[in-house]
Amino acid sequence: MSKQLGLNVELPLSFDAAVTRVREALKQEGFGVLTEIDLRAAFREKLGRDFRPYMILGACNPPLAFDAITADPSVGLLLPCNVTVEWISDGHTGVRLTDPEALLSTVVLEGAPELTSVAHDARQRMLRVADSLSKP
Amino acid sequence: MSKQLGLNVELPLSFDAAVTRVREALKQEGFGVLTEIDLRAAFREKLGRDFRPYMILGACNPPLAFDAITADPSVGLLLPCNVTVEWISDGHTGVRLTDPEALLSTVVLEGAPELTSVAHDARQRMLRVADSLSKP
Repeated sequence: MSKQLGLNVELPLSFDAAVTRVREALKQEGFGVLTEIDLRAAFREKLGRDFRPYMILGACNPPLAFDAITADPSVGLLLPCNVTVEWISDGHTGVRLTDPEALLSTVVLEGAPELTSVAHDARQRMLRVADSLSKP
Repeated sequence: MSKQLGLNVELPLSFDAAVTRVREALKQEGFGVLTEIDLRAAFREKLGRDFRPYMILGACNPPLAFDAITADPSVGLLLPCNVTVEWISDGHTGVRLTDPEALLSTVVLEGAPELTSVAHDARQRMLRVADSLSKP
C-alpha cells in the first residue's frame, strides 16, 4: 500500500477464537460491531468458489461516528471502520484494523478540522485495540 | 474532499422510495447489498440522539470482490463499497456512491495491477448506477 491503511496483528488462536477476541477488544474501546460479512460463506453461496475463512467486521464507535458525520455527511462512505479476521493456518489468524486517520487523511478534507480530531481519537482507540490483541 | 470519493446524485423521491430505487439500480450492475446500517436508528438507540434518515448500504459485486481480495487480501479493509442514502427534504433524497477507483488509488497499491483493473471495472459499474439513478 502506498499509505499503510491497516494495523496488523497476528494471533496464535484458531479463527473462531480470534473473532471472539477481536470483538471483545473492540468493545473495550467503545466499538460495536454493526455489520459482519463472512466472505467465505458469501463466495461459496454466490460464486460456488472456495475461500479461506475471512470475516469483515464493521466496527463503529457511536459518539465518534455521530461527530464525524455531523462534521461531514459524506463520511458515511467510509463508515463503519473495517476490521478483517483472516485464517492463516490452524492456530494462526491474521487481524487487520483500519487506521481511521490514514483512511480519512487520504480522501476527506471537507469537514476538517472537526474530522481531524475525531479521526485522531478513533486511531488512538484502534491502536489500543491492536495493543490489547498483541498481549497474550 | 481532496479526492472526490463519491459520485453524487439527488433523487426527487421520498427517502424510502430512494432506498428501493438505489437497491434496484445496484442490482442491475451486479451489486448485492450485503450490509445495511440505519444510522438514524443506531444513533437513537445508542446515543438517544436524533438524526435525519440516513442509510449506509454495503454494495458488493461478488466476482469483482473475489478477484480483488485474491489480488490483495488487505482489500477487505475497503469492502463492501458504500452507498449512502440521505434525507435532504421531503421528496428530495441524496445518494452518494463510492468511486472504487478513487478509493483504491489513494491507499492500496500492493496487489496492482490486478487490483487496478478490478477497481476500474467496479467504477464503470458505479458510474452506470449513477447514470441510471439520474434518469427519471
